[in-house]
Amino acid sequence: MRKEKEKVKIIPLGGLGEIGKNLTVIEFKNDIIVIDCGLKFPDEEMLGIDVVIPDITYLKKNIDRVRGIFLTHGHEDHIGALPYVLKEINVPVYGSKLTLGIVQTKLKEHNLINSVDLKHVKAKDVIKLDSMLVEFIRTSHSIADSMAIAIHTSAGIILHTGDFKVDYTPIDGSVIDLARFAELSKKGVTVMLCDSTNVERPGYTMSERTVGEAFEKFFASAKSRIIVATFASNIHRIQQVITAAEKYDRKVAVSGRSMENIVEVATELGYLDIKKNTIISIDNINKYNGNKIAIITTGSQGEPMSALSRMAASEHKKVNIIPGDTIIISANSIPGNEKLISRVINQLFKKGADVIYEALADVHVSGHACQEELKLIHTIVKPKFFIPVHGEYRHLKQHADLAVSLGLSPNNVVIADNGDIIEVSKDSIRKSGTVVSGQVFVDGLGVGDVGNIVLRDRRHLSQDGILTVVITMEKESGSVIAGPDIISRGFVYVRESEDLMEEAKELVRNALNECEKKHITEWANIKSNVKEVLRLFLYERTKRKPMILPIIMEV
Amino acid sequence: MRKEKEKVKIIPLGGLGEIGKNLTVIEFKNDIIVIDCGLKFPDEEMLGIDVVIPDITYLKKNIDRVRGIFLTHGHEDHIGALPYVLKEINVPVYGSKLTLGIVQTKLKEHNLINSVDLKHVKAKDVIKLDSMLVEFIRTSHSIADSMAIAIHTSAGIILHTGDFKVDYTPIDGSVIDLARFAELSKKGVTVMLCDSTNVERPGYTMSERTVGEAFEKFFASAKSRIIVATFASNIHRIQQVITAAEKYDRKVAVSGRSMENIVEVATELGYLDIKKNTIISIDNINKYNGNKIAIITTGSQGEPMSALSRMAASEHKKVNIIPGDTIIISANSIPGNEKLISRVINQLFKKGADVIYEALADVHVSGHACQEELKLIHTIVKPKFFIPVHGEYRHLKQHADLAVSLGLSPNNVVIADNGDIIEVSKDSIRKSGTVVSGQVFVDGLGVGDVGNIVLRDRRHLSQDGILTVVITMEKESGSVIAGPDIISRGFVYVRESEDLMEEAKELVRNALNECEKKHITEWANIKSNVKEVLRLFLYERTKRKPMILPIIMEV
Repeated sequence: MRKEKEKVKIIPLGGLGEIGKNLTVIEFKNDIIVIDCGLKFPDEEMLGIDVVIPDITYLKKNIDRVRGIFLTHGHEDHIGALPYVLKEINVPVYGSKLTLGIVQTKLKEHNLINSVDLKHVKAKDVIKLDSMLVEFIRTSHSIADSMAIAIHTSAGIILHTGDFKVDYTPIDGSVIDLARFAELSKKGVTVMLCDSTNVERPGYTMSERTVGEAFEKFFASAKSRIIVATFASNIHRIQQVITAAEKYDRKVAVSGRSMENIVEVATELGYLDIKKNTIISIDNINKYNGNKIAIITTGSQGEPMSALSRMAASEHKKVNIIPGDTIIISANSIPGNEKLISRVINQLFKKGADVIYEALADVHVSGHACQEELKLIHTIVKPKFFIPVHGEYRHLKQHADLAVSLGLSPNNVVIADNGDIIEVSKDSIRKSGTVVSGQVFVDGLGVGDVGNIVLRDRRHLSQDGILTVVITMEKESGSVIAGPDIISRGFVYVRESEDLMEEAKELVRNALNECEKKHITEWANIKSNVKEVLRLFLYERTKRKPMILPIIMEV
Repeated sequence: MRKEKEKVKIIPLGGLGEIGKNLTVIEFKNDIIVIDCGLKFPDEEMLGIDVVIPDITYLKKNIDRVRGIFLTHGHEDHIGALPYVLKEINVPVYGSKLTLGIVQTKLKEHNLINSVDLKHVKAKDVIKLDSMLVEFIRTSHSIADSMAIAIHTSAGIILHTGDFKVDYTPIDGSVIDLARFAELSKKGVTVMLCDSTNVERPGYTMSERTVGEAFEKFFASAKSRIIVATFASNIHRIQQVITAAEKYDRKVAVSGRSMENIVEVATELGYLDIKKNTIISIDNINKYNGNKIAIITTGSQGEPMSALSRMAASEHKKVNIIPGDTIIISANSIPGNEKLISRVINQLFKKGADVIYEALADVHVSGHACQEELKLIHTIVKPKFFIPVHGEYRHLKQHADLAVSLGLSPNNVVIADNGDIIEVSKDSIRKSGTVVSGQVFVDGLGVGDVGNIVLRDRRHLSQDGILTVVITMEKESGSVIAGPDIISRGFVYVRESEDLMEEAKELVRNALNECEKKHITEWANIKSNVKEVLRLFLYERTKRKPMILPIIMEV
């Protein structure tokens, strides 16, 4: 067997140099597997875009070798691109019961539920492919039933941690399987891919259980209703709200579509331990005293259409915030959402509610490992090679530095980009090339039909609006027989700018005359003359640069 | 004299329920003074807006009683609206030497420098008006020469703290005048208006001097260039960079227009203590070894056009980031800027630089008082009444709670809104009404000509673009003689959507025929039919809602 056959290719198609759209390709001999298939939420400048997914051109080209998508856990940035990707490559999807439960909800929305092969796995399960064994290993994270993945090949073991923290006292008692990490270490891990999200944070992430202790305090002392907003996917957090409510004899109502979905799925699948009669319909909350009620809701990021935002804005049909209500925002601010959250907090305070949030109390912990936990994992696993994943460049760089500080040679660490091909054997690691990678925009029903030109236009329109100039001309003679008419949107108040518009029309008329005199008859040239005259005039008068759209109608 | 004459009116026109555009009106008998005149930077949804300023309708109506604008310090949110406001009400402006130095730079840009009466004051100065004495009191803040203002009237003393922290070891040795606060307390302060920015933070804000200690560490150990990005207005921070550079024998170059301006103004006015030969031109940095160079620059908020962003993107003409450079971002992230800053940090790391920022080292301190400092001021001043200012509602509410926790009666605390009239006498405080207030948008040369309709259109355009439908019709018969033509921008890739556009045209033709059959001849009705047909069709096919603009040309 030639030596080059004994190399594993690792090709990240998402998740490097960014937080989101995690997707890693692992390739050995004739087998390709995909770890995770996530989406990313659009940046501010991606106007009108709903979600961003990875470019999977490489997988489509190699579809006959793709054995399946292996999911580490059920967060959007790990499963959210599935409905789009499965339409292109319909391969089996492996995941834990909860992960697939969440995936199922998504597939139903996309009418894909009957065409996809979902394969349930649990921690310690091993899936056998021709050239590799794919093993699932228990971890802790801010969603239940999360797992790391180890791929056993004749070229060595590849360990992908997934997103994780080291929680010795997780809510479901299902502790990260450090012993298995140690066993793999003993066999020798060739390369580890490890979560870098919290590498900038010193110390340890606190146990999820500490949040429950904070909840207890508020549930014990609040004299009226308690409303807890958190991430819908955080089943353990939801469990802790329910546990606290039961302890203090409160009924629990659920508000917000994604929260209702997850509570239903998690209850069905046995991930939530709820006493009979604890849950009541949101319709019935007013039948109880405030101090007998807790509400779990979405909206911890201040999302404008979420249940909590609607409560804060007096637009929620069932929940009316009143003085004495205690609202706990059990979440951190995801960067970019600070102002939205702040607005909701202000509105809630104005209604006389007590609002508890991260700045004021320990009502949230992260789901990702901080520096000391990362050191622990590195020290247990002792990989020969290391690829930091799940982070912006700054995180990857600092995670690389952390690994080196623990004794790894800088030559054994690879900071990669999406699309890089990293070839690994038992004694070497190198980037050997690149494949197509990138971001695909989803806007409404369109996947990939909005690109940089459309976005550039949207940005232009968003800044100064548009000015449309319509002229009707006679085909033969080129003489103007109607117009110019000017209509603007998003530029200036029309009423206050009538003079400006009249002047603009006059300028266009002059430009058209000028064109006629100079025998400029190409419409493209006429249009560009009109555009230029208007551009200069409008900028001089307003210091704004609206999009200018000249239209010539011929009759 | 009737009793009601002995009431002071306090009317905040900006700065309450928001961070920014601080402007407070104080009115007694025949005198009106204005404290600060700030701008606010636009929220995300204020597309295309440059800055937001307070609505000063009330001041314009009462212009003959307005005695002047009194500035506490030179930050944008306290002075930035001056060029716009002074065009409407040309009154004297009082401020410290540095504050007015910064104001002058602004007025020059707006060609106002010769028409405004700038009056220099210093701490302990008292300005005498008919019915009030206006006294300036030294404070500490993240800009030099900041002051509180006490207004002495026969109805009592009004104390406005301005923005402040309690720094016992400020860089210029000019410590907050706690003794004067205590003297006023002894005379009896009727009402205090106090900075609420940091009320959510426990403990004390660290002294500015601690940042210098952090700088020293990096200046002592860095083997190559050090580039420090900070707020241009933070003269003390700039001084500390210069002091550290001089200690470790580095030359200092300055980059970024606002930083160059401020260093020039501050040096001229004597606020910076710089040895001869320390400052060199940015053109000359390559004449020295890296370990002999420090650069001070703008861009600590990741602003896309700033010097640091240009360095990070390899677009800076004079500074080329190379491995070994140490970049210190000496600032916090202002909410909303996190992603921009993160992008710059990632780019700098990719160039091989060491990047030091707040998450990694103590290279920034706040300029505002934390909880323990606020308690100190409340305890020294012991005002009869209290109005929390300079904060969103959540800050005002928590500052009110803090005052009550120190013993003030809740009845003596007023949480106000912009536009509220608060009447204060020696033994009463109440809201007695409101005046016009609000936000005025500045976009290019336009002040107030962009309002909610224009912004709504910009938001609409930004999400799904625009589709223009042009039809030329004969005036008399109403028959279509050219078109429909459809042009879209920011909606879909035109090339990929030719079929869609053809179908759309066909639908418009049908709609026009339908109108003819039904004898619908009003153009408004024809347009609205066309619009509705297209709206439904496009939403069904794309799940997008572009702005649809039907234009009928008559010949």
